[in-house]
Parts: sequence; C-alpha cells; structure tokens
Amino acid sequence: MTKFDEATQAIRVDETTYDVCLDDGYGIGGPLNGGYLTAVILRAAVDASPHEHPVSTSTQFLRSPAPGPAKVLLEPLKAGRTTAVTRATLVRDDVAYLDTLITTATLGDVAPDWTGEPPAAMPPLDDCRSLPAPKPESNMTLNARMDLRFDPPTIGWLNGEPTGRPESRAYFRLAEPQDPDPYVLALAVDCLPPVVFSAGARGWAPTVELTWHLRALPAPGWLTLYGSGRLIGDGWFDEDVEVWDSTGRLVAQCRQLARLGRG
Amino acid sequence: MTKFDEATQAIRVDETTYDVCLDDGYGIGGPLNGGYLTAVILRAAVDASPHEHPVSTSTQFLRSPAPGPAKVLLEPLKAGRTTAVTRATLVRDDVAYLDTLITTATLGDVAPDWTGEPPAAMPPLDDCRSLPAPKPESNMTLNARMDLRFDPPTIGWLNGEPTGRPESRAYFRLAEPQDPDPYVLALAVDCLPPVVFSAGARGWAPTVELTWHLRALPAPGWLTLYGSGRLIGDGWFDEDVEVWDSTGRLVAQCRQLARLGRG
Repeated sequence: MTKFDEATQAIRVDETTYDVCLDDGYGIGGPLNGGYLTAVILRAAVDASPHEHPVSTSTQFLRSPAPGPAKVLLEPLKAGRTTAVTRATLVRDDVAYLDTLITTATLGDVAPDWTGEPPAAMPPLDDCRSLPAPKPESNMTLNARMDLRFDPPTIGWLNGEPTGRPESRAYFRLAEPQDPDPYVLALAVDCLPPVVFSAGARGWAPTVELTWHLRALPAPGWLTLYGSGRLIGDGWFDEDVEVWDSTGRLVAQCRQLARLGRG
Repeated sequence: MTKFDEATQAIRVDETTYDVCLDDGYGIGGPLNGGYLTAVILRAAVDASPHEHPVSTSTQFLRSPAPGPAKVLLEPLKAGRTTAVTRATLVRDDVAYLDTLITTATLGDVAPDWTGEPPAAMPPLDDCRSLPAPKPESNMTLNARMDLRFDPPTIGWLNGEPTGRPESRAYFRLAEPQDPDPYVLALAVDCLPPVVFSAGARGWAPTVELTWHLRALPAPGWLTLYGSGRLIGDGWFDEDVEVWDSTGRLVAQCRQLARLGRG
C-alpha cells in the first residue's frame, strides 16, 4: 500500500459512518490540502456505493481541519441503475469541516465520441521547472509528496516575473511510485499554486467551492495539469484545471471559486 | 411583480422551511427546467441568509418534480462574516428532488482586477435567429417565457446542419420586461438547448450535476450566453456556459455534467 493510499484510507464503521485519519504529510502551510481531504471523503463514498467511480464531486470548504482522526458521514440521496448520489461530510467532534455532494457511476474504457484539444502547448518535461524545496518551517509537507514540473513562464512569479494573467501549467505525478487513479486525480485538481499568483496576487487563497468531474480513468504515467482563470475581482477568483493523462486524454475537469489572499 | 418573480417566490414558514409553487410555465417537454428550479431554491436560501447574493450553487438533480406546491428545506452549515453556506433541498411528500450546496455573500459593484475576453465573437442581434415556435403538444412552455437569439451556425442542427462540435451561443432576455438579476441568471445558465445537439446528438439530456458561480451583478439589457463542451463519450458530456452582460462583463460561469440522450 502506498503512502497516499494509506493516508486516504476510510474504514467502514457502519453503512453511513467511516473512520479516517487525516495525515499531516499533505499540509500547505497550516491547513491540509483540499484535494487530499476530498480524496479521503471519496474513498468512503465509493466504498458505500454500488458503483465504482466518483464521477462528480462538489465540495464546500467550511472549516480547515487539523491532522488526526475524523469521520466521514454519508447520507444516501439516490441509488439508480446508472448513478448513485451521496452527501458526504467530513466531521470531528460534531463539527463539519467539508460538505460534499457526490455522484458515483461506473465508467467504461471507450474512446470519446468527440474531444476538444488540450488548452495550451506544453514544453517537453525536461524543459520544465520544479518548485524550490520549501523551508521546513513553512509546513509545506505536500510538496515532498508530489513531483510537479512547471511550464517555466507560469512559475515566473517565483522570481518576480508573473505573466500578468491567471495561469499555471505543470506535469504531475506522486513522488512515490503510484499510477494515477480517481483519488490521485482528486488531489491533482487542487494541487497547483493558485493561478492568481501568475497575475501578481499573493497570500493564502482559501477555496470556497470546488467541483470536479472524472471524465475517464487515467492511464499510467505523468498527468498534465492546465490551470487558468477567467475573472479576478471583488476579492474573488475562479480557477479552472483540466487534467490530461499520458495518452493525451482529458480525464478530469475542475473549477473552484476562491477568495483572494490579503498577503 | 413579474411572472418570473412570482413563479420563483419562496414563502417563509419558519427558519428552515419555505413554501414554493412550481410553475408549469417553465417546462421543457415533460420536466421543469433545472435552472428555474434552482432559482426557486435560491430565493429561499438567500432570504434566510445574512448575505445578499447566491455566489456559488452546486445542484444535484435527483428526480424531476411535477408542477405544484413543494417545499425548500434549509440546513445552515456555516455563517461567517464574508460568506454563509447552506444546504437546500427541494422536497415534496418527504421525497427530495434537487439537493444543493449554496454559498451566499454580498458582491460589490467594483471593476475587475483582471478579466479574460469573451470566448467567441457574436454577430449583431439582428443577424441572430430565434427558435421556431414549439408545437403546443411538446410542452415546451419555457420557450414562451424567454427571448433567445442564436448565433446562426450554432442552431444549424435544427436544419440538419450541426457544426460538428458542442457549442451554442445566444442573446437572452426574459420575454416579459424584467432586468436580469441573480435568479434570472440561474435560469439563463441552464436554458440553452444541450450543446451536444451541435455535435449531432439528439434526445433528452438529463443534467446530473450543475455548478454555477455569480461573478458580478448583471446590468440591465440583453445577456449573452456562450455554451461549449470539452468531451463527449461513454454516455456523458459536459456543458460550460459563460454569461456576459450588456456592458461586456462576465457575470456568471456554469458547468454541468449530463447524460447523453438516447433519442
């Protein structure tokens, strides 16, 4: 079992209750990464579903949980032949931290009827840039769990050269050997530095709402993440992330609405 | 009070219960339009919130309700200084039809820090095409409530000339005199014919999940709807709709995941 599989484990207590343990290896500063927390919730929801895959997940980030034991509570809303819908809530001591609505279904392995093109050209992997190692006191423990290689201009903000628009593009894999699956995708869609950093913004950018759709099961190998945004203003921004797999297939779509940092 | 305001009214029974009456004037064939139903739910959620606007709404479409009396049940999840989060469910006789997670906040009237361009060029209004009047027996009552003027190629499928890719673009206003507001936007983001019709698909295309974000309060006048998709396959498709107002401002973003029709 990989570290990621272990850190996202959900142990069935009864039909609607799962025990989980939030791992401090997925921290971004103080808080735990929202994609990691969503992956934990999805483990429980899929385990309890008659279907195999988390096809659509909407998450409201209510509060930021500290690492340690917690529970996922499930409320089945619909169980159909094609899809099931569940509300799943991450709770500790009767306080809700994340609230989600999840559609599960079973995806096949079929070629698309129609697909768009990747949203941007990516340079070869060898021409891409890693993030510098974070200072230990920054608590960016997540960085050591992922291997991210950025399209250089989209990480220019690190050296005071933002591109002037919200964007972030990178190749992604887990640092440990693990093929991507829907739970890795749940992490991948929320693991880029906020796209607004490329537009000159700074500081902690808390996600308010994040919805992502699993469009196909990813092939082994690197994933490519294409992050962009459409509007920054009034303290809010959107971040859209498409994930393509190593065979050139769109496997996940994500949009989050977040608050601009004050930093 | 306009017909739309009346049809979306939510009458407070107590802190967490609202009476509504689902209006048969917003039908698309048998079912009622999902954007209309979402607008009804939002009336209740915003009325009960300390904030003024429905900034983010995720809806799971569980079942299709018939017209008539129903209830919106609210479950407050968080009430913060900047945002409040509510779960709101449309129910009748203890059966849930739509389940939603809603963030409310109060938007200001400020210029964006950064904005993208409209996703496509639109021809002038006078060069656009209306839908033909539906046959009375089709129960497309919604069509009479809206004035939609399509970018002609994106409605070519009506005459057996689909463009070959998922797209739909149109100017929009209510048929009755009413300035757009967040509730009109809730309808607008889900009122286009499915974008897959332009890619050659046909038939009833039920929405599974729809998330939309209110990005700014719309100015009076026509709205412009830009619909597109990224992937069609395995029985699923996505539909992305951006709504721009008459001053050229992005006011709403929406993505839905839906099932392909079998028709």
